[in-house]
Amino acid sequence: MHKDCDKTYFKKPEFYRLTGENNYVRIDAEDKVTGHGQYVGDIMFPDMLTGKMLRAPFAPARIVSIDISEAEKLPGVKCILTPFNCEWKHKVGNGEFAKEFADKEVLCTEIVRQVGDDVCAVAAIDEETAQMAIDLIKVEYEKLPGVYDPFEAMEEGAPEVNWEGKGLRNIGMQSHMCAGTDIDEEFGNAAYVQHRDYSAHRMVHAAMEPHGAVATYRNGEYTIWMSTQMAYVDQFWYARCLGVPENHVRVIKPLVGGGFGGKLDSYSFGLCAARMAQITGRPVRMILTREEVFQSTRNRHPIYMHIDTAFAADGEMLAKKCYHVLDGGPYGGSGVAACAQATLWANFPYKLRSVDFTARRVYTNNPSAGAMRGYTACQVHFAHDLNMQYAADQMGIDPVEFRKRSAAEPGYVAPAGLTITSCAYKETLDTAAKEIGWYEKKDNMAEGEGIGFAGTGFVSGTGFAVLEAPNQSSACVTVRLNKRGMATLYIGSHDIGQGSDTVMTAIVAEELGLPMDMVKTFMSDTYLTPWDSGSYGSRVTFLAGNAARRAAVDAKRQLFEVIAPMWGVMPETLECLEGKVISKEKAELQMPIGDAMFKYMTVKGGDELVGIGSYYHRTDNSQYNGENTTNYAPAYSFSTGAAHVHVDKETGVIDIDEFVFAHDCGRALNRRAVEGQLEGSIGMGLGYAIYEHNITKEGKILNPNFRDYRLPTALDMPKMRTFYDFAPDAEGPLGAKEAGEGSAAPVAPALANAVNMATGVYFTELPLDPEHIWRALNGMKDDRNSK
Amino acid sequence: MHKDCDKTYFKKPEFYRLTGENNYVRIDAEDKVTGHGQYVGDIMFPDMLTGKMLRAPFAPARIVSIDISEAEKLPGVKCILTPFNCEWKHKVGNGEFAKEFADKEVLCTEIVRQVGDDVCAVAAIDEETAQMAIDLIKVEYEKLPGVYDPFEAMEEGAPEVNWEGKGLRNIGMQSHMCAGTDIDEEFGNAAYVQHRDYSAHRMVHAAMEPHGAVATYRNGEYTIWMSTQMAYVDQFWYARCLGVPENHVRVIKPLVGGGFGGKLDSYSFGLCAARMAQITGRPVRMILTREEVFQSTRNRHPIYMHIDTAFAADGEMLAKKCYHVLDGGPYGGSGVAACAQATLWANFPYKLRSVDFTARRVYTNNPSAGAMRGYTACQVHFAHDLNMQYAADQMGIDPVEFRKRSAAEPGYVAPAGLTITSCAYKETLDTAAKEIGWYEKKDNMAEGEGIGFAGTGFVSGTGFAVLEAPNQSSACVTVRLNKRGMATLYIGSHDIGQGSDTVMTAIVAEELGLPMDMVKTFMSDTYLTPWDSGSYGSRVTFLAGNAARRAAVDAKRQLFEVIAPMWGVMPETLECLEGKVISKEKAELQMPIGDAMFKYMTVKGGDELVGIGSYYHRTDNSQYNGENTTNYAPAYSFSTGAAHVHVDKETGVIDIDEFVFAHDCGRALNRRAVEGQLEGSIGMGLGYAIYEHNITKEGKILNPNFRDYRLPTALDMPKMRTFYDFAPDAEGPLGAKEAGEGSAAPVAPALANAVNMATGVYFTELPLDPEHIWRALNGMKDDRNSK
Repeated sequence: MHKDCDKTYFKKPEFYRLTGENNYVRIDAEDKVTGHGQYVGDIMFPDMLTGKMLRAPFAPARIVSIDISEAEKLPGVKCILTPFNCEWKHKVGNGEFAKEFADKEVLCTEIVRQVGDDVCAVAAIDEETAQMAIDLIKVEYEKLPGVYDPFEAMEEGAPEVNWEGKGLRNIGMQSHMCAGTDIDEEFGNAAYVQHRDYSAHRMVHAAMEPHGAVATYRNGEYTIWMSTQMAYVDQFWYARCLGVPENHVRVIKPLVGGGFGGKLDSYSFGLCAARMAQITGRPVRMILTREEVFQSTRNRHPIYMHIDTAFAADGEMLAKKCYHVLDGGPYGGSGVAACAQATLWANFPYKLRSVDFTARRVYTNNPSAGAMRGYTACQVHFAHDLNMQYAADQMGIDPVEFRKRSAAEPGYVAPAGLTITSCAYKETLDTAAKEIGWYEKKDNMAEGEGIGFAGTGFVSGTGFAVLEAPNQSSACVTVRLNKRGMATLYIGSHDIGQGSDTVMTAIVAEELGLPMDMVKTFMSDTYLTPWDSGSYGSRVTFLAGNAARRAAVDAKRQLFEVIAPMWGVMPETLECLEGKVISKEKAELQMPIGDAMFKYMTVKGGDELVGIGSYYHRTDNSQYNGENTTNYAPAYSFSTGAAHVHVDKETGVIDIDEFVFAHDCGRALNRRAVEGQLEGSIGMGLGYAIYEHNITKEGKILNPNFRDYRLPTALDMPKMRTFYDFAPDAEGPLGAKEAGEGSAAPVAPALANAVNMATGVYFTELPLDPEHIWRALNGMKDDRNSK
Repeated sequence: MHKDCDKTYFKKPEFYRLTGENNYVRIDAEDKVTGHGQYVGDIMFPDMLTGKMLRAPFAPARIVSIDISEAEKLPGVKCILTPFNCEWKHKVGNGEFAKEFADKEVLCTEIVRQVGDDVCAVAAIDEETAQMAIDLIKVEYEKLPGVYDPFEAMEEGAPEVNWEGKGLRNIGMQSHMCAGTDIDEEFGNAAYVQHRDYSAHRMVHAAMEPHGAVATYRNGEYTIWMSTQMAYVDQFWYARCLGVPENHVRVIKPLVGGGFGGKLDSYSFGLCAARMAQITGRPVRMILTREEVFQSTRNRHPIYMHIDTAFAADGEMLAKKCYHVLDGGPYGGSGVAACAQATLWANFPYKLRSVDFTARRVYTNNPSAGAMRGYTACQVHFAHDLNMQYAADQMGIDPVEFRKRSAAEPGYVAPAGLTITSCAYKETLDTAAKEIGWYEKKDNMAEGEGIGFAGTGFVSGTGFAVLEAPNQSSACVTVRLNKRGMATLYIGSHDIGQGSDTVMTAIVAEELGLPMDMVKTFMSDTYLTPWDSGSYGSRVTFLAGNAARRAAVDAKRQLFEVIAPMWGVMPETLECLEGKVISKEKAELQMPIGDAMFKYMTVKGGDELVGIGSYYHRTDNSQYNGENTTNYAPAYSFSTGAAHVHVDKETGVIDIDEFVFAHDCGRALNRRAVEGQLEGSIGMGLGYAIYEHNITKEGKILNPNFRDYRLPTALDMPKMRTFYDFAPDAEGPLGAKEAGEGSAAPVAPALANAVNMATGVYFTELPLDPEHIWRALNGMKDDRNSK
């Protein structure tokens, strides 16, 4: 044999198939590690142009004039879009949540509202030429007074940022949630009441892959390969902005190198790429620079949080009022939902008799803020769990025990209407406390040593209304079986790095009793695959996973209806297992699925078999005190983070001995994926707590790059142990709940609580970088959190 | 506005939508004319290797040794496959027809049987390096005695070409068809009997795109982009040869630049590309040179045809015996079916009381022959229609009238069992005679002037057994409707340039009452799309078209079952028309299809709608004289070609005044596509009749390139007029029958009959090039038809 002939570079590993242990290698693993997989930046066409955006250098300002005469002369420049030579039929936004908050012009026609706002676009033969053209465009601006503090923005006489008479000055969105018993009475009768302020800072998603798009215009239709979390919603908005029907816009999500909420919104650059592809007749590629990702996409909302809390003498939390002010920047989009959710999260994970929550998302001239892993859960849980810890300490109750007294339980309905079904929050608390060694260590803490906990709850499969279609599925899936028993899965869900394509494939494989490599998965293409609302709100495993499961069940049902009569049994007595159709009652009745499909097609005259499934969570199925309320999700995940730290009081440096994570995700469908999510959550939470901070000055991010914006690296990661599964959910696909988003929230508060214990200082602001800690320990004011 | 902004390079033309005139621009037209479309040669990967085959320089010969040591040392050479370092699990063939005739080794382990036979394969960093490596491989051969004449091959003592005791010496396949009345009696009682010999020569398909494949091996699976007419059959064979299950082989047909039968067979080069991709871990591209296409793929069979015919006194044809000898070359594949069909076509288009047909496909060491546009219809109809013309002339009957006396009619069942349903052969004869001006001109022919006719019949949607699945559909199609009323069509059928994707899309659009751009078509991908048996035997419009129509009807049915109760009417009273669901009875009941789908999904809890359709023709549904017979197709097309020529007797040059073509295709689903097929048939038939000829010497083609092999160009095309539609078929999709393959057959015999009239010589051999004609007119022997 030839020396190479008995070796192949990648043999399909055995565990690629079902092992019964829910442990799969990702179906895209090899493509990713070998570099064969296609991200947007890998998509190449022979005659492709490179696009660049011209962005506002400061804001706010009025555009006085735009002169493209020099840029047009530059050889290799093929197209220049200005606000005045190109018409858009609609403002752009994020339609899933708030059609009315599509409040951003594709190119600013009059006012630039934030640094990096979109002014012009260029397509040229290469990146250098495109950049030179951008530099040659002369834009004359008239500076306008800006506002960079949300509280100042709400004051009388503040400049209007993006206000069109929608309500109070610069308050783009206000969310108010008031429910339960008489809250004044609860506060009046309380044994202990506290009033505290917290604030969380500005950060970015820092996905390794920057935002990008490649657009073509052929046959009268746009095709846009987009690094996105919402291909179908992009299709919706792009069609409206471009002024064409949706069936002329095909959005394809290739591999995506991380989203974390930053790729939820529909951005101008993709639309400009599409329009320039149409004008030039050539494909246009537009990949944002890292600086653009920081400044011009979306940040995590800075939030200022005031919390009043009332407790009974035994530590039970009775009632809570809070007032959250979100710095939204000048535009809505996914940030609108963030505002609503900034009150939602305060319901979790503790029981309350009464709530009075208000959140305001305020327009400023800072960079626009939007969704980021947990929407606002990370900010809100930081404040509200530090608040719990402070109360426990003030009341002299063990913080684990204190949390358990108010901890949510199965069957609890929160005042806001959230109906808790499966819930193992207490168990996660117990696990985390035990594993971090709390009870052994709590009374023997050394100088500078601390252990902190934080608990959170999160939605699994948020059920917001879908565009104009509140009764439409959030995910639809079809599965086709051919005469060999091979399944083709058509699914719109968006794997943005979390491994959901693998989980979807595994769900179908498990349901159909097929090995993984008998299921071929096609995903996230608005022409090819059925509707899916996108990767956000921890929807994919729950909604698309349930839809996939239902499609597989529907396929089995049809197959059994043909096979059962041949065996003289009832269809309900059949099952698919290990590649066979089997009778659950008579062991001798079994047949390979391919043979069964062959018989099916014979009976059906040649038709292959298609199973269809969809899943939609109705939000109006909840009652609280006999009144209809909104239940945001079909299930809720719960988790506890526990951090054991040592703080060097001379330097302010935090040394993390260990981080223990206990997460109630119901049932892990792919154990290594869940572990990846939990460990990734620790990494991201660590960055949020200690390392990452977007410093802005008059709306300009001063550290928009990975040199000055410090992401924790692998070397910064602490020792970690993760515990998961806990309480399988009856509604979840094969018992699963979310594992990637709620898990991000407890990390920073657990670390902060540990640091607080270690230092004796009750820090209330993020990040807890050494200088911040050192200054606090030395009684110096910390003024670095930009407002 | 920007100077470019109000222009787009390609506006979707209005007639791209349904016009009611069955005239569509191809859905791939823009991609093709702009060069954006992807043929196999356009598929690029960053790290792709180029593959080359080492081929036998002469044959037959025994491989004595292969030395790759020098080639291996060449920098840039990544893989060399020899017959001895690489194992194949199966011989390769064309499985649709004859699994037992997969008689070709992927790489020849002992004997090379034809010039260009596959010996080694190389993958290198570029084409030059690959070719240098091929040149550095030293293969020592021992020449063996060969046989290049099929009659000699059948003689006692002839060398065995590829004979494994299957039957008579070198007779790879024999087809015998004997049916009807007592044939000796018919001949004995006949008023006129004639015995004639004819022969047709060797040619190639000469598709503009050479054969090619790009293969990758990732995730333990092969993906092969193949210029093929049978992606699913390739999958079947590749899996067997590579020794993996079918679900590890994905074959994708990109745009194909012509097939004509030459891309039916599964070839070694694609398998070698796949194996080398596996070994190297890099994509491998293998595009054949024009010389390889000529010498190593497939040729049209040279056929030697003896015909005995018996006629009644009024010219009615009573009985026919024939003996056809096909020069098959050394391998079977699609050529096996060609042999069977060489007797089949002799049934057409004339009625017979009695037949006794024999065809033998003989192994020789000439290039392998296979299917080519009509299988063997062009050769057989050439002989059998010249035979009719000769009889008409001998009996002194007008040749049009003579043909009409025996012409097939609706309801006729041929002795072989073929059941003619719709048939307008007589009308095509009348149309052709009238339009060519036969009756005005016939008695006023100038010196060297001639008018010739030829009539043919052909299968529409051949119904051969599909692999091991005689009861499986030959085409399965699914159509999904989304909440906007946009349809996605998943169809395996193979558009190889004939425009079938457009027709499939149009059928679904017409059935669903949608404009063309509301139907998105995905095709020809063995993972993505349902089973389709391939583009051959004029199957696509009939089989896949019917399957597509049924899928659309199934989708409508499901939609109507939801909408009808809302309107209080019966589902059967609804229809889809012009983008709406309408009531056929109450004009006020109508609703856009998107709105109807929205309601459907509401009722169905979010499920989108999938319609499924399939089509399979049962060949056992025919009776002749009370006995079960094989009916090869659900319908048959008929056509008449008429040529008006002047022959320059001094030079032998033929000047074609006009060619009139009348084709009974039932109903043209896309008029411009049918016209393209008919005009293309005239071009190809013209090449067959006059220009194209593969000259071989000891099995080596001496003119394997477009300089020496003379294809007619646009400048050589005569004035043409085409007439079509005629007899809509009840079983055909929207009435359609085939229009691309049967149409190729009458061109050469019509031209030959015209030349015979013009010259007074009864030519019986092709091609009729000027030298051939000049030699005959000057009484010189013509010995150029190689045997």
